[in-house]
Order: sequence, then structure tokens, then C-alpha cells
Amino acid sequence: MQVRLTVEYEGTDYCGWQIQPNGPTIQGELEKAAQRMFGAPVRMAAAGRTDAGVHALGQVVCFRPPREGFDIERVRRGLDALTPRDIVVREAAWVADDFDPRRSARRRTYVYQIWNRHSEQIVLRRFAWRVGRRLDAQAMAAAAAMLLGEHDFSSFRASDCDAESPVRRVLASEVRREGDLLTYTVTATAFLRHMVRNIVGTLVEVGLAERPATEVAALLAARDRGRAGATAPARGLFLTRVDYDDVALERDDGG
Amino acid sequence: MQVRLTVEYEGTDYCGWQIQPNGPTIQGELEKAAQRMFGAPVRMAAAGRTDAGVHALGQVVCFRPPREGFDIERVRRGLDALTPRDIVVREAAWVADDFDPRRSARRRTYVYQIWNRHSEQIVLRRFAWRVGRRLDAQAMAAAAAMLLGEHDFSSFRASDCDAESPVRRVLASEVRREGDLLTYTVTATAFLRHMVRNIVGTLVEVGLAERPATEVAALLAARDRGRAGATAPARGLFLTRVDYDDVALERDDGG
Repeated sequence: MQVRLTVEYEGTDYCGWQIQPNGPTIQGELEKAAQRMFGAPVRMAAAGRTDAGVHALGQVVCFRPPREGFDIERVRRGLDALTPRDIVVREAAWVADDFDPRRSARRRTYVYQIWNRHSEQIVLRRFAWRVGRRLDAQAMAAAAAMLLGEHDFSSFRASDCDAESPVRRVLASEVRREGDLLTYTVTATAFLRHMVRNIVGTLVEVGLAERPATEVAALLAARDRGRAGATAPARGLFLTRVDYDDVALERDDGG
Repeated sequence: MQVRLTVEYEGTDYCGWQIQPNGPTIQGELEKAAQRMFGAPVRMAAAGRTDAGVHALGQVVCFRPPREGFDIERVRRGLDALTPRDIVVREAAWVADDFDPRRSARRRTYVYQIWNRHSEQIVLRRFAWRVGRRLDAQAMAAAAAMLLGEHDFSSFRASDCDAESPVRRVLASEVRREGDLLTYTVTATAFLRHMVRNIVGTLVEVGLAERPATEVAALLAARDRGRAGATAPARGLFLTRVDYDDVALERDDGG
């Protein structure tokens, strides 16, 4: 059996999920906490390798514990206590050995927050991109809807993305305004590197009337990263949810 | 004429509004920024002297500029740029000389956030009090409603409160639950020191069934700080709004 964790984090002070030599990472902090808890090295895998500065409200993390026969809720509390305050271990459950948080995932959902006011907002300043000029949320919603379905997302893919295929299936793509806060919610089977932030950069240009909403179809067809908008800052982006097929979920709930 | 500012801040790293020798304060940062901008000392007054760690979304601040004849929006932008990132100068307007942000205020509104889950929440961890055990929001709402009207709030007053009278008029006192987030919203003509946090500490004891909701009436009648609940942590508290009478508001809007 493996342990499956649901983890939240504020990405502000981290170089992303994946361990690297240049600075602290979420994976590094979690593995350090597990090593202290079990007294043996532990290797963790995540559903999504979030970039530097990106947050998570529903990251799924999996590891094989060096020993078994422990209470899973005590493990959750221990890992939560041993990690820094900006990493929260929200849930822990037993899951089958063949569960792979990345390959077993069927859908991932990201939310991007835009704070649309001339001045910053205190609670959201670490969790939203501030755009001072008024955005046309309706035009942005129309542009976002054109991304639904299966497309070649080369125009929205980082140059160093190592995915084999640029084709992804988008299942939800919605822009909503609530007062000065705009949220973009996107669900897809999987994502390319920087895909959400490149989409948001383009949607904001639509919202500022720098591009017509209808241009999104041409951008998809062009398959040229140079044609789409700039990459939106990491701080507005949250990995909110990862869905697995029923079998995996049932095993998880029953663990 | 005076300048009236609407200011937001995250109180986490400050010793409160009022200047003091022990550490950074909101007043200190704003006065330093104004001194840099005008090249002369500036003294600021606020509607509410928020305590260490308390946040504001609608603090009202007033000062007499050392010179006049400047563009008020440039002053707003300048002060916003010269203060640290956790202080936001949201609005600036001209206001009459007899306006006093503290004495002219007719109503103040505070919101207190409680995060009711066994684990912390990333976005709210600096802006809410986490209570792990499940709270009965309905019982808390019933208790909160008993505070409506004019009462002697001695039982909810800090021992070092220097107000002349402990009598205050509460105009709104509501507890609401949305998922794991509980918010307590309270509007009064004015507040005593620690009054909101002492009320919240008591409401949480009601929510945990440690006191019946009906006990609030007896607590008010007792006029004894020792009888009410503990002081809730500062980080959940926001000064959200200060209301002035129509004359002051009109002058402000037209400034």
C-alpha cells in the first residue's frame, strides 16, 4: 500500500514542486518531514509539478512508507506539523500500490485569480495578479469558451515544455467576475507547461481590448507561441483539484 | 482643507495603528511616506486605532498637507508607492477642515474570520483564527443577536481600555457560515478596546457548546470581564468600514 496525501501550499517562497538545487521546494520540505517522521528516506510523487510561485489547494501526493502498521491520521498530523506553515497536509489515506498520482489522474483543475483594481488588495496580494485597467470579463469569457474541446495548444506552451504531444482536451474554461475579482477556471485531462498562465496572459489582452475575443481560434490554429499573449505571473495560479477514476477514488475513501 | 485617505493593511507585521517605540506601525509608515512626499513632517489621525496584528480593509485616515495645490490622485499613488506592500492607499479625497476621522464617525464595522477545519488554509492562514473542532454556527448566531442594541459592554472590555463609558450601541451582530469559513460581522457606533475579539472568544465557546447561547444576556448584566470568554487572536479581525454622516460623505465624494 501507498499513502496518498492531499496537500495545500502557498507557493510564494518556493521554487515549485520539484526538488532542485537552487532553493526550497514543496517536494523537498515534504520529503524532509517524512524522513524525520519515519527515520528513513522517502520519495514523493505529485499529480502536478507546479512551477515556482504557483499555489495548490488540492495537490495529490503519493509515497511508499518505509514501514506500515501506523495510524494514517497521525501521519497526516505529523507531516502537517513538521512542514513549514505555508504547506498544509489536509488529508491522508491508504491507496493501492498501482496508484500513480500523475498517470492515474483523469482531470486537473486550475483557478487563476485576477484582481482588477487600481490598487492592491491586502488579502489577495500574494494570490492574485493585479491588473489596474478595467477588464471586459464578457469578452474574456467568450475567448475562454473557444478553448473548449481537443486542440493543439502549441501557441500556449512554454518553449522548454517536455510533453510529447501538444494536444490537450479542455473540459471547462470559464471567466467570472465578482466585484473587482476575476477568476478563470480551467479543467483539462492534462496541461502543458505554462499553459494556464499563457492562456490568462492572452485573455487579459482580450479583456483590455488589445485583441478581439475571436482571435483565439486563429491563435490555436497558428501553433506559434510568439502569437499568443505574455505569461501571466505565477502568484495568481492555484492547482485546485485532481480527479481520478472511480476505482482509485473508492480505494482512497475506504483506506 | 484636509486629505482623507481610505487605507487597507495587513496588520501581521505591525504593532498596530498608533506610533510607538517598540516596532513598526501603520501610522509610522504612512507618516514617513508623507514626509518623503512633502518634504515636511505630517501628522495623521485614523478612525480606529487598530491593535497589533489587526487588519483593515476600510481604515479612514486624515491629515493636513504641508502645502496645497496638488493633484489628489497623484498623492494617493505616491503614498501607495512609498509605503510597504502590506499597506495600500486605496482612495484619497479632499475633506473639510472640521472633519475628524475618529469623532465624526457614526458607525464602524468589523469582520472576524474563523476557519473551522482541522487543518490550516493557505490563503486565510494570516487572516483567520483556525478552530479545529466543529462550531455550531446557529448557536453562535443566536448568541450574537443578543448583543444588538445599547448595552454596557464591561464584560467584553480590555482591562486597559481608556474609554469614558462602557456603553455602546450595536447595530448589527451576525454570524454566517460558508463551508469551513465562519464570519462574524459587527457594526456599532463605536467599540471598546478588544471588544470584538472578546465577543468572538465568547461566541466560539458557545459554538463549542461550552456555554449556552442564552448566557450572553447574563454576561452583559454581570459587567465583569472575568466572566466572558478569552480574547480571540488579532489575525482574524478586519476593520472593514467606517461610516460618516451625509454631510461628511458628500464633502468627501465631491472633493
